[in-house]
Amino acid sequence: MANSGSGDSVVDRVVRVIAAFPEGVTVLQLSELAARTGLPLTTAHRLVRQLAGHGLLDVGTGGSVRLGLRLWEIVNRNSPTLELRQAAMPFMEDIQQVLNQNVNLAVLDGWEALFVERLSRRGSAANRAQVAGRMPVHLSSAGLVLMANQPMPVQAEYLERFTDPTGRLALEDLRILLGEAAHQGYAQLAGVVDPDTWGIAVPVLDRKKRIVAALGVVVPLREVRLQALVPALQTAARGIGRRLGESQSGAEFRSME
Amino acid sequence: MANSGSGDSVVDRVVRVIAAFPEGVTVLQLSELAARTGLPLTTAHRLVRQLAGHGLLDVGTGGSVRLGLRLWEIVNRNSPTLELRQAAMPFMEDIQQVLNQNVNLAVLDGWEALFVERLSRRGSAANRAQVAGRMPVHLSSAGLVLMANQPMPVQAEYLERFTDPTGRLALEDLRILLGEAAHQGYAQLAGVVDPDTWGIAVPVLDRKKRIVAALGVVVPLREVRLQALVPALQTAARGIGRRLGESQSGAEFRSME
Repeated sequence: MANSGSGDSVVDRVVRVIAAFPEGVTVLQLSELAARTGLPLTTAHRLVRQLAGHGLLDVGTGGSVRLGLRLWEIVNRNSPTLELRQAAMPFMEDIQQVLNQNVNLAVLDGWEALFVERLSRRGSAANRAQVAGRMPVHLSSAGLVLMANQPMPVQAEYLERFTDPTGRLALEDLRILLGEAAHQGYAQLAGVVDPDTWGIAVPVLDRKKRIVAALGVVVPLREVRLQALVPALQTAARGIGRRLGESQSGAEFRSME
Repeated sequence: MANSGSGDSVVDRVVRVIAAFPEGVTVLQLSELAARTGLPLTTAHRLVRQLAGHGLLDVGTGGSVRLGLRLWEIVNRNSPTLELRQAAMPFMEDIQQVLNQNVNLAVLDGWEALFVERLSRRGSAANRAQVAGRMPVHLSSAGLVLMANQPMPVQAEYLERFTDPTGRLALEDLRILLGEAAHQGYAQLAGVVDPDTWGIAVPVLDRKKRIVAALGVVVPLREVRLQALVPALQTAARGIGRRLGESQSGAEFRSME
């Protein structure tokens, strides 16, 4: 039966193949794919062939392998973030129109903020096609706000495990940042990717007051309308929370243990 | 080895589980999932557990199953359509800003246009969060333009297999529509989803003059600026084509046979 060792390992291999593409890389040669998954070339070839037969991979001439259009379609039609993004998009467009700032929406996944939607400022070169970026909690205003609104045991575990490889942020400072974010109802942090910007984020709560996302903007350091930005974000976040269904909105984005 | 019957069937089952969610449905109960895949409940449960362990599925309290955030992340970070969408997005934003129309981008997949990106008109209620829709070739201007620019053998096979279940479009009319689209360099078609609109689409060609996508707008029937819309779309399409890399831009979105 499928719970045999061989069954398990096929699932593992499928996952290794699908997850083998480094961030932003859309094409791998079959030989690269085999090397990255640690599978023998013949095994990789057979598995790629099977997955391509189902549309989970696409194979071009010369053995170039991409994730399949059908896989892309399935995931985006039935996206785990669809309900949240649908609820959020009109409000994100409002923020973009009214404040003319880059707007983003993130959820907590592990100890990181995973950005699930992004709208660029008009005229901005930033490209919305690339979503699904990640930032560690302590390096993003969205991450801080998401963590600051977690239940205490989750925060305690996070702080216990926290290490900053750069050594620039002490544990005590992080504790203060989280405390402030919880107290003030928003977090702000100087840009990590672009040091001339600030990130500001507020929590999106569902009807049961559980945090489901962080709504944020990235603004130039010279931007002085913080007093106007935060209420606008908070208003939009309340609108999003109200639109989320009562039943499934609080479903946690966590894998089964 | 993995090419045994049991290995094959594990891949099949993985695909059946991932593909089990009907369009727009983000959550299934485990029992529904089992029923939809035709797997015994215990088998479905074990497979879901394995896939959730890898982040390809997320399982909530009470046995609710979603596609996994990690799967969403992998597919969107390494999307097969990423290069195309990144090349197209600035030009789609231009169209949206200048013409203030709903803009879309589609690729041909089988005998259907698969919409891979969409920008809504400002103030429009249409929601961009939902992409990955499909339309039969003969019911969409994007589909007609995509098919009209395929090599002759592909068009011949398409026409040979064509049937319109509604009986409203005769084969000869379709042949004329395709011929016009090829000759004029664009296709236009009255809206199917919304009968008060027209769809207009032009081909996006890569540097080797192979069609890679269709760029289209959806406009109200009363819109009379067709003369202005088509050149604007064609200009944007040329810009997109120029931005596509010479090497892989023409990679076909087809599964290995």
